[in-house]
Amino acid sequence: MPAAVLDFWFDFASTYSYPAAMRIGALAADAGVTVRFRPFLLGPIFKAQGWTTSPFNLYAAKGRHMWRDLERLCADLGLPFRRPDPFPQNSLLAARVALAALEQALGDDFPGEDFCRAVFRAEFAEGRRIDDPATIADILVRSSIEPHAALAAAQSDASKARLRTQTDAAQRLGVFGAPSFTAADGELFWGNDRLEAALRWVKRVAHSE
Amino acid sequence: MPAAVLDFWFDFASTYSYPAAMRIGALAADAGVTVRFRPFLLGPIFKAQGWTTSPFNLYAAKGRHMWRDLERLCADLGLPFRRPDPFPQNSLLAARVALAALEQALGDDFPGEDFCRAVFRAEFAEGRRIDDPATIADILVRSSIEPHAALAAAQSDASKARLRTQTDAAQRLGVFGAPSFTAADGELFWGNDRLEAALRWVKRVAHSE
Repeated sequence: MPAAVLDFWFDFASTYSYPAAMRIGALAADAGVTVRFRPFLLGPIFKAQGWTTSPFNLYAAKGRHMWRDLERLCADLGLPFRRPDPFPQNSLLAARVALAALEQALGDDFPGEDFCRAVFRAEFAEGRRIDDPATIADILVRSSIEPHAALAAAQSDASKARLRTQTDAAQRLGVFGAPSFTAADGELFWGNDRLEAALRWVKRVAHSE
Repeated sequence: MPAAVLDFWFDFASTYSYPAAMRIGALAADAGVTVRFRPFLLGPIFKAQGWTTSPFNLYAAKGRHMWRDLERLCADLGLPFRRPDPFPQNSLLAARVALAALEQALGDDFPGEDFCRAVFRAEFAEGRRIDDPATIADILVRSSIEPHAALAAAQSDASKARLRTQTDAAQRLGVFGAPSFTAADGELFWGNDRLEAALRWVKRVAHSE
């Protein structure tokens, strides 16, 4: 039987990516599904749709509902929540470091997924700015990663190119928002609310192969 | 203990209002919640957000995902599904007749909620056009309602004003999409995915009063 694999596409600035990132580990383990964390940037994709900022800022009523909905959702999940200020945060630095961490470029023993969850926690639970290198450095230091080299590497041309490639890949798969989940057969699921359905999908496909 | 009441806001053209309308009766009965069906028009609300048609038409990738997602959702729920053509349908006539039916203006024995479900079924399961008076007349005739008087009444100034008032009320409550659910305390829930949370909310509020 082939492995059931789900790609988890997220932007650190995306509000509903926070509960998705916090939920996906346990749910995937229960379902026997391997998850690949795939940070990307929503900015270029929103731009292609004619948006210069988050639709939650562009459409006031939609934004008001989202903040209240996220607050209710986090309360139900027992997740701490603080509204980031400013919103959206610039997620470029965090995404570049996350990509390096996920590719084990920061060390074999440094789990990139833990780094991702720590960034979401800093932003949505602790009210910290993730565009501040000090925030990212703190997260690295707590995992015994030397921050200066990691932050310098994140600014390299190779690192920038990797994130662009990742964002292009998301767009080619039809990703238009975050979080999104994709299966190897191209099936796309959008939103934290679809995490369970996406896990069921890849399990079903793997079983039928 | 006060009654737990949930207002169910929908537009007949709205795709996710279809599964919500089909699910809400049984779920509300199980939860002991009284539901008020409140058809309104999304058009003026979208217009106020700068959209001249459905966002699913304006944003192609979002639209592609929605159709596939709705198809998966209906399959999971055992609901027949056919993609309406054209989309969105003009829901003006259906909404006016529905309002009259829900206010028992078409007869005390004609359940307005059944009429609403029949409209959704015609549109999303049978591929019929709901802007065609013949479709609406068929639904009325099957319930032994004389269609000519009902359709004429739907075109009256009073009927038009009622629908405008209803749409204004939705907008004042912060409704920006459909389906939406509102509680007496002003709490707003958007989307078919939030139906269960909305029912839990009004139950909890009623119990704590």
